[in-house]
Amino acid sequence: MREVIINGLQDFFFEYETPRQVLVQNKRVGIVCRLIQLGVLGYIIGWVFIYEKGYQIEDSAIGSVLTKMKGVGLTSVDGVDRVWDVADYVFPEQGDASFVVMTNYIITTGQKQDKCPELNDGKNSCNSDKDCEGGQYKRTGNGYMTGKCVITTGTCEVHAWCPIEDDLTIPDPPLLMSAENYTLFIKNSVTFPQFKVVRSNLVEGVDNSYIKRCLYHETNNPLCPIFKLGDIVRLSGFNFQQIAKEGGAIGILIDWVCNLDYSLKHCKPKYYFHGLYGNADETDKARASVGYNFRHAKYYTENSTEKRTLMKVFGIRFNVIVRGLARKFDIIPTLTAIGSGVGIFGVATVVCDLVLLYVLPKRDFYKNMKFKSTVIDDEISGSGSKVGDVSMTNIGSKDPAPITMKD
Amino acid sequence: MREVIINGLQDFFFEYETPRQVLVQNKRVGIVCRLIQLGVLGYIIGWVFIYEKGYQIEDSAIGSVLTKMKGVGLTSVDGVDRVWDVADYVFPEQGDASFVVMTNYIITTGQKQDKCPELNDGKNSCNSDKDCEGGQYKRTGNGYMTGKCVITTGTCEVHAWCPIEDDLTIPDPPLLMSAENYTLFIKNSVTFPQFKVVRSNLVEGVDNSYIKRCLYHETNNPLCPIFKLGDIVRLSGFNFQQIAKEGGAIGILIDWVCNLDYSLKHCKPKYYFHGLYGNADETDKARASVGYNFRHAKYYTENSTEKRTLMKVFGIRFNVIVRGLARKFDIIPTLTAIGSGVGIFGVATVVCDLVLLYVLPKRDFYKNMKFKSTVIDDEISGSGSKVGDVSMTNIGSKDPAPITMKD
Amino acid sequence: MREVIINGLQDFFFEYETPRQVLVQNKRVGIVCRLIQLGVLGYIIGWVFIYEKGYQIEDSAIGSVLTKMKGVGLTSVDGVDRVWDVADYVFPEQGDASFVVMTNYIITTGQKQDKCPELNDGKNSCNSDKDCEGGQYKRTGNGYMTGKCVITTGTCEVHAWCPIEDDLTIPDPPLLMSAENYTLFIKNSVTFPQFKVVRSNLVEGVDNSYIKRCLYHETNNPLCPIFKLGDIVRLSGFNFQQIAKEGGAIGILIDWVCNLDYSLKHCKPKYYFHGLYGNADETDKARASVGYNFRHAKYYTENSTEKRTLMKVFGIRFNVIVRGLARKFDIIPTLTAIGSGVGIFGVATVVCDLVLLYVLPKRDFYKNMKFKSTVIDDEISGSGSKVGDVSMTNIGSKDPAPITMKD
Repeated sequence: MREVIINGLQDFFFEYETPRQVLVQNKRVGIVCRLIQLGVLGYIIGWVFIYEKGYQIEDSAIGSVLTKMKGVGLTSVDGVDRVWDVADYVFPEQGDASFVVMTNYIITTGQKQDKCPELNDGKNSCNSDKDCEGGQYKRTGNGYMTGKCVITTGTCEVHAWCPIEDDLTIPDPPLLMSAENYTLFIKNSVTFPQFKVVRSNLVEGVDNSYIKRCLYHETNNPLCPIFKLGDIVRLSGFNFQQIAKEGGAIGILIDWVCNLDYSLKHCKPKYYFHGLYGNADETDKARASVGYNFRHAKYYTENSTEKRTLMKVFGIRFNVIVRGLARKFDIIPTLTAIGSGVGIFGVATVVCDLVLLYVLPKRDFYKNMKFKSTVIDDEISGSGSKVGDVSMTNIGSKDPAPITMKD
Repeated sequence: MREVIINGLQDFFFEYETPRQVLVQNKRVGIVCRLIQLGVLGYIIGWVFIYEKGYQIEDSAIGSVLTKMKGVGLTSVDGVDRVWDVADYVFPEQGDASFVVMTNYIITTGQKQDKCPELNDGKNSCNSDKDCEGGQYKRTGNGYMTGKCVITTGTCEVHAWCPIEDDLTIPDPPLLMSAENYTLFIKNSVTFPQFKVVRSNLVEGVDNSYIKRCLYHETNNPLCPIFKLGDIVRLSGFNFQQIAKEGGAIGILIDWVCNLDYSLKHCKPKYYFHGLYGNADETDKARASVGYNFRHAKYYTENSTEKRTLMKVFGIRFNVIVRGLARKFDIIPTLTAIGSGVGIFGVATVVCDLVLLYVLPKRDFYKNMKFKSTVIDDEISGSGSKVGDVSMTNIGSKDPAPITMKD
Repeated sequence: MREVIINGLQDFFFEYETPRQVLVQNKRVGIVCRLIQLGVLGYIIGWVFIYEKGYQIEDSAIGSVLTKMKGVGLTSVDGVDRVWDVADYVFPEQGDASFVVMTNYIITTGQKQDKCPELNDGKNSCNSDKDCEGGQYKRTGNGYMTGKCVITTGTCEVHAWCPIEDDLTIPDPPLLMSAENYTLFIKNSVTFPQFKVVRSNLVEGVDNSYIKRCLYHETNNPLCPIFKLGDIVRLSGFNFQQIAKEGGAIGILIDWVCNLDYSLKHCKPKYYFHGLYGNADETDKARASVGYNFRHAKYYTENSTEKRTLMKVFGIRFNVIVRGLARKFDIIPTLTAIGSGVGIFGVATVVCDLVLLYVLPKRDFYKNMKFKSTVIDDEISGSGSKVGDVSMTNIGSKDPAPITMKD
């Protein structure tokens, strides 16, 4: 028994099997098949390896963003000038990746908890007290109905923050058109945890003195992290006055595509800007929901009564989105690509064989070369293999003219 | 030398090699092997290509979310009615993807910087001044100890915002049960940067007039982007009154699965709701941390003293999460899948060969057919290859009965 | 016709083809080739399957984070003690994944809309009214110039929130050094949607009683979700006093790597801390932008005039980032890896053949064994294949000494 195993191991290690092949010396077949094989090889090398970089592994980035707005706005309402600085017009204040810059507003001062009629905007009209069920709330209303219909306004009386905000007319031109000149500074850091690489958008060359004077320009200063709001809006395809009036949302995409097989200093961000909802070229009517606004309240106490100043803030909402993809050579995808390539090579062989065996005029001859046939009488089965039952024939032996072979 | 290269190239281009094969004409072997091969083919086509769509590349989405709450709440505390609108109950106010809707609260009015005893909640009790080390801060405390033990309350005196908030009893039923009827409008846009496709959740058919009257329903209105808070809570598996009392966190998942080989209009979002911490069916005791709350302060000045109104806000925190996956035909994964499939085909051949050579009764005969053996005396090496050293044998030639072949 | 098809199908199903192979019985070749093949096999099993777990599919997590700070700070400015609690020093208040803890500040009280000279910080100096163009805004300024140059300060007069904030000197040591002892509680839940698995960082063993007394320690308590701020800063490689003075940004990475082929309870988070901008070991001058700060305003009305208290807040910004990767056995990647492995096996065969046919001294002999050559006179083409045109030769037949074969 042991001997058998040792013999088997010896056979295994001292032998090597390699497929027997037919060399078809035919110019046409040869050229066709070589071209197919070269095409496959070219595809594997050119496309999978060079273009798609199949020899590299990928890692996506963990990004972190800080933003800081700069600039002062000026409004003149009813002859009163008012200055707006960062603490006034940015929501939230702490420099998040997603923030709003106020560009227009409707202010309602001195609201307090009280009873007053609804705004006559056509949605809350009433004819008699029956239309205003006491204690109920309408989806279009601003408070709980008291059950009274106020005749002078033709609307239900509600328990709400009074007076009710009148947002029927939006100031046009927008009150804070000066927002166009605000600047935005973005600090972005990306980490590729698999490669243990950390990069910041303040890359080589973007130092303290450069930052102090630079302003992003898509071709001249593509790496400057300071952006003029008007530029961002323009590059997103919006018209500033239009978006400033009713508000809108803009995505700032910071795109990192890094090939870490090269030096790290080639790993630089690219900035893209795009409108998030409702492109500028759509007609207003086609859009189901236009603009962007929210309500912001400042509370105070006056004569022991809690009051608030309500602002309906129209603004541009910026979303800074970081997308990072780093690639680096790795042995696993390389070998997988090679293995897969060898498999595709097999496909080339199959195609050539089909041509050889079914298309060429001398196909019978090639079949004869390629295949050796065995015929076994299947019915007779058993331990003793009677050799007489076995007969081997070359395919195509029915061919009348016998082929002379020196094999 | 040049001639050799030219000849070599000619040989290379005008020749084509294809493996020689044995055709085993045995019904049993034939059927078994063909079935294995068909199984592999079926797997490759059916599973890899049709089910797993191995011929497509994937791109994940960059999502952007705007939210807007609507609805008015009403509380009656000590006979005083108070109305709460969006500016009062949503934190933060600007419509982020992650926000809190207040459903319950504990209010502490008129806090100012002062000295007062700690709350007697069992964690800060003292017997004498020794228990209250002056200038120190306890992890369970609300301020810096003055070193005095107040006998009336049995707690240390602290320098803090006074009076200390008493949050031992949480209002039950929750004060803002009306939150159940608030509605949430979600605007979501996804971008698949690799395919340059942008979609909004306001898809075809979800237009202005539809949005004005629709309300999300999992089967009847699965595309309406307006949700009733009570519905969201119910679909997440929570009981509204329970979650409203102590707060909780709910994830709203917007799932985009798009096959871009079809028309873009089939690319629609699906909404899923799930509780994020502590499912409703877990017992309260098993959960390490229940509920969700935070503290919110409004500052004001009264008689030249800075004061604040502190609110412990219990609420439902909503996280709108966007997940997008688009797929499109691409030649690379197609060829990779084919190449890999050809490789697996090779496995089928290996299995069939094992059956043929080791299982079948006529295995020796097949070995003989498949293999041609060469024996070379390894010891004699050198430039002159003496032919006499080489002998070729068919495997199995030790077999007593010689096999008759016509080859 | 039908008969032909049936015959073809019969032939297809009752036949099986397998490549004919040469068994090279040569110890050197055998051992070399077997070693190459074993190496490939070892690579496929050891690396692709065991190390890289190529038999599993991956799913990345959807994470959700709640944070809660605890601790009270104490400042003493001009002999006045002031206590700061969570509602005072955390921005935003609602426990987001990204938040700021104030560690230092510059306060400007009683600002109102007025005219006053710019701060004399060297950037806004003027010599005469000509330097201050009326109605214009300078990028370095805080308001709109009135056109007057104030001689006492040597700066332009501006319409702004007055008095202008003086942020030339940052308090050092930072006012809220006590922030070092604050604690941060992180609640994190991850969902692997493909596997329908939800996990929370309050894993088995992290229950209510453990949470009440534990504090994160990288080796002793790696699962405790309560962190001391000083520890986080230290583990990020920062010096607390330095970062507290000018602010900074720290990333807290919660890393979930789960092998779902094992029990779910082995799926536990790991916490990592790293500075996001400007590592501690860089020199200050090399960094383009140091620190982190933002401005926060509290508005109030005094004598019918709107006023505000402006704070320039320096703080540590924490970004809690969740990264999750779960893996589970799946048949598709297993078969793809096997298929690709078989392909790589083919590469081993190619290498061995190259050795056999071009390196070994008896290469001609092996060529003879491996290849059967056919020569067809390509010029004569037509339907009748004249056998006389075909001649088959073994490669190497030019070899003077004929080889004796028993085939």
